[in-house]
Amino acid sequence: MNNYFSIQDIDALPIWVEEAIAIKKNPLSHKTLGKDKTIGLLFFNPSLRTRLSTQKAALNLGMNVMVMNFTGEGWSLEYEDGTIMDQGNSEHVKEAAQVVSQYCDVLAIRAFAKLEDRDDDYSEKVLHGFINHASIPVINMESATRHPLQALTDAITISEYKKTDKPKVVLSWAPHPKALPQAVANSFVEMMQRMDADFVITHPVGFELASQITKQVPIDYNQENALKDADFVYVKNWSSYQDYGKVIDNDPFWKITSEKMKLTNDAKFMHCLPVRRNVVVDDAVLDSKNSIVIEQANNRTYAAQLVLKKILEKS
Amino acid sequence: MNNYFSIQDIDALPIWVEEAIAIKKNPLSHKTLGKDKTIGLLFFNPSLRTRLSTQKAALNLGMNVMVMNFTGEGWSLEYEDGTIMDQGNSEHVKEAAQVVSQYCDVLAIRAFAKLEDRDDDYSEKVLHGFINHASIPVINMESATRHPLQALTDAITISEYKKTDKPKVVLSWAPHPKALPQAVANSFVEMMQRMDADFVITHPVGFELASQITKQVPIDYNQENALKDADFVYVKNWSSYQDYGKVIDNDPFWKITSEKMKLTNDAKFMHCLPVRRNVVVDDAVLDSKNSIVIEQANNRTYAAQLVLKKILEKS
Amino acid sequence: MNNYFSIQDIDALPIWVEEAIAIKKNPLSHKTLGKDKTIGLLFFNPSLRTRLSTQKAALNLGMNVMVMNFTGEGWSLEYEDGTIMDQGNSEHVKEAAQVVSQYCDVLAIRAFAKLEDRDDDYSEKVLHGFINHASIPVINMESATRHPLQALTDAITISEYKKTDKPKVVLSWAPHPKALPQAVANSFVEMMQRMDADFVITHPVGFELASQITKQVPIDYNQENALKDADFVYVKNWSSYQDYGKVIDNDPFWKITSEKMKLTNDAKFMHCLPVRRNVVVDDAVLDSKNSIVIEQANNRTYAAQLVLKKILEKS
Repeated sequence: MNNYFSIQDIDALPIWVEEAIAIKKNPLSHKTLGKDKTIGLLFFNPSLRTRLSTQKAALNLGMNVMVMNFTGEGWSLEYEDGTIMDQGNSEHVKEAAQVVSQYCDVLAIRAFAKLEDRDDDYSEKVLHGFINHASIPVINMESATRHPLQALTDAITISEYKKTDKPKVVLSWAPHPKALPQAVANSFVEMMQRMDADFVITHPVGFELASQITKQVPIDYNQENALKDADFVYVKNWSSYQDYGKVIDNDPFWKITSEKMKLTNDAKFMHCLPVRRNVVVDDAVLDSKNSIVIEQANNRTYAAQLVLKKILEKS
Repeated sequence: MNNYFSIQDIDALPIWVEEAIAIKKNPLSHKTLGKDKTIGLLFFNPSLRTRLSTQKAALNLGMNVMVMNFTGEGWSLEYEDGTIMDQGNSEHVKEAAQVVSQYCDVLAIRAFAKLEDRDDDYSEKVLHGFINHASIPVINMESATRHPLQALTDAITISEYKKTDKPKVVLSWAPHPKALPQAVANSFVEMMQRMDADFVITHPVGFELASQITKQVPIDYNQENALKDADFVYVKNWSSYQDYGKVIDNDPFWKITSEKMKLTNDAKFMHCLPVRRNVVVDDAVLDSKNSIVIEQANNRTYAAQLVLKKILEKS
Repeated sequence: MNNYFSIQDIDALPIWVEEAIAIKKNPLSHKTLGKDKTIGLLFFNPSLRTRLSTQKAALNLGMNVMVMNFTGEGWSLEYEDGTIMDQGNSEHVKEAAQVVSQYCDVLAIRAFAKLEDRDDDYSEKVLHGFINHASIPVINMESATRHPLQALTDAITISEYKKTDKPKVVLSWAPHPKALPQAVANSFVEMMQRMDADFVITHPVGFELASQITKQVPIDYNQENALKDADFVYVKNWSSYQDYGKVIDNDPFWKITSEKMKLTNDAKFMHCLPVRRNVVVDDAVLDSKNSIVIEQANNRTYAAQLVLKKILEKS
C-alpha cells in the first residue's frame, strides 16, 4: 500500500478487520517492524483521539514519532500551482511535502474542511498536495471529505459487536450548534457499502450527503422509522452539502434519546467523538451499557496500527 | 498507588525521600520498568520544569511519552454533569478521560486555578474529573489547589541539605505583579506538617491560606521575626484566599534581601521557580551560594520518577 | 566541542564535510552513541526543516528528544542583568538555562532576530544568555544573526555537487514581501570564506551585510554580471543592515529566472527554504533539474547529526 487516503485503499476488508482484531489481542506482536522508521504526524487542526491513537499505534510497532502542529509551529502553506507567492503563505506544499519526505518514512496528515467553498474542500488540496509531492506513503488522519481511519475503526467495532451476519446499521444525523464537516459521515457511508450490512441513512431534508458517496444507500427522512430494529445506531452531525457548510436546520427532535433507542433491536450506540452530551445524544444513552463509544475509540489504535503495519511491510 | 493527586497519596514519607535520593544516584537503575508503557502528559497551562522533568523521569524508566497541550491541540472540555452542551465546550471530561485511558498506561495533568471562583477552583473539577473517569492512574502536575510533585521535590531537597534533625523552615510570602494560585504554597504547607521541621508561615495580613490546610501551623505577620534562625527560607507569592484571587497588597518590603537572609541561621534559599528577580527576591540572594533553587529544580526529575516508579510497580 | 553557535566552532571544515557525507551513507552507524542521552529542542519561532531534521539526527544517534515551543508552552524570558522583573517576563534566562541543563544533555535553540534594534539582535542575547548560563552544550538552530546548521548543510551540499576544486558561488539577494533576518546570509558568507570557492555577493545598493562578516568578499551590484559562469547560485532575501530591518527596495527585477540561470555555468540552484515561488525565484527554476533545494534540505539531517556526534563524543 502506498497511501491510505480513503477506504478505497483497503484491498480486502474482511482480512483487514480480522488482522486488526488479531493486532488488538497482541499489540506488541510486531514491535520490531518499525525499528529505525520514523512517522511524521502533521496537524492542521485539533485532535485528541487521532493524535494519541496514531502515536500509540506507531509506538506499538517500534517506530519513532515526530509530531508537528503545522499551524503555528511551521509555515503557512500555498497549494495552488503557479501562484506569485507575495501574500500570506510562506511555503508551497511542493517543497513542504518533498522536504518532510526526507526526514520521515511515513507521513500522516490532518486537514479539516474549511466549509467555505465546496469545490475547494472536495478537491482535497491539502491531502492531494502532500500525496502528489511526497515521496513516502501518506495516511489521512481526517481530510476535508474523508476520515478513513475512523471508518476502518468502525468496521472493526461493528465486526466485534455484531450478533448476526448482516446487521441493520443506521447512520443518523443529529443536531449540533456548529457547522461540522462531512468527512466522518462520508467515510462511514463508503464503509457500510463494503460491509455486509442492512444500511440506512436518516437525516432532515436538505442534509443529503454527496450522491457520488451515498449512491444507492436508502435515505429515510423519518428517524424513528429508520431506527426500527437497528442493531447499530451510528450518530453524527454534519453540515449541509447542498447549501454547503450551512446549518440549515438544527431541530432538537433529532437528538438520540432512550425512547428512540427502544425502537431498535437493543442496538449498540456508536459515535466517533467528541460528542456534545444532551445535544447530539442524551446522557442516558451515552452512559448506558449499549454505548460502545469508548471501545470504538480504543479501536482507533488498532486501525492505525494495521494501516501502518501494511505500509511498513510493503516498504 | 492509584493516583498521585496530593501528598496524602504518600504512604511513608521518609521511605519515599530515601528512595528518591537512591534514584538520583542511579537514575537508570529501573530502565526496563516502564518498557512498552506509555505516559500521556496533558497540559492546560504553560510549564517548563514540570514539562521537561516529568518527561525525563519517564524516559529514565524506559517509558514512551506522549505530550499534549490540551488547550489548542485538543477540544475544549465540559466538566459539569447533565449539561446541555450547546455552548463552547466540545467534549465532556467523561469521554476525554475514558478515551485517553485507552491509549496510555499513566496520565499526568496540569490545570491551574483560574482564580475567579474559589469554590470552583477548590472543587478541583479538572483533576477530579479526570481521576473519576479515567481507568488508569493520574498524576497531578499542578492542579487548581495542589502541586504535590513540587512538594515531594521540596521534601527531598530539604532532606538533602538539612544539618539538624529538625530544621527551622520558613515559608514567606513575597510580592508579585500578578495574581498567582495557592497550589505550591498549599502543598508545601501540607508537606511541612508531615516532616520533622520547626515550621512557620509569614505573610501580610489578609494572605492567610485556607485554614483546612494550615491547621495548627503558626503564622507570623512579622517577616523579620519569622526569618530569625531559619535553616530554610522558602519563598512564594500567592493571591488572597479570603478575597479570593486578589492581590490585596503588594508591599515591596516583603521582598527577600541579603539583609534579611542575615537574620537566618545561614539559611538555604528555596523557590519553586519561575521567580521574578528583584521583585520576589534580590539578585544577590538568588546568585548566592545559599540559593539551592537549581538543585531543587533538578530534584523535580527524581520526585516524578519516584511517583512513576511506584505506579508502575503497582500496576 | 562545547557549543555550536557559529561556524567558528568548526575546527576543520574539510574533515567535517567528509565525515558528514560518511554519516549520510550510513546514518545509523552511531546508533548507540546517544543512548540514554537527551536533547532538548527549544523553539522561540516557527520551524519545519530545523524542527524535524534535528529530531531525526538525534534519533539516528539513539538519543531521546524533548521538543518545547518556548513561546506559549513556557514562560516569557528576561535577558537583562539586574532588571526589576515587575513587567511581562516571568523567568530570567539565568534560571531557565540552568534548569534545562538539569534535564538535558544537549540543548538546541531557535530564536530569530526581531529586526527592531540592530544592537539588540547582534548582541545575540537569547543564544548567549543560554550559552552563558547553561552547563551543557548549546546548538544554534538559527539565532538573531547566525544559522550555522544551515551553513554546514550548504558546505556539504556544495561539496557533493561541485565539479571543480574551486567553484564559482554567487549569493544573490532576491525580493520578498516581508522583512527577513540576515542570519542565513551571514552564516553562508562566513562559510564561503572558509571554503575553496570563487565567491561573490550580489544585491541592490543598501543591502550590504555587516562588514565584519563580509570582510573582503567582492560585492557586485549587477546581478547579471555576478551570475556569469556561476557554478552555484544561492538565493536568499534579507532586510537592510544599515537601515536596520527595513525593506528599502523590493525590485522584482532581482527574482531569479530561467533566463538569468542561462548566464551561469549550468549552475545548481540553492535556497535554504521556505521559498516564495515566483517572487524569489520562478517555478521554472525551482522545478528544473538544476535545483538542488530538496537535497539541500535533506542534508540538514546530516549536518545536525555531525554536530551532535561531535558533542556526544566529547562529553
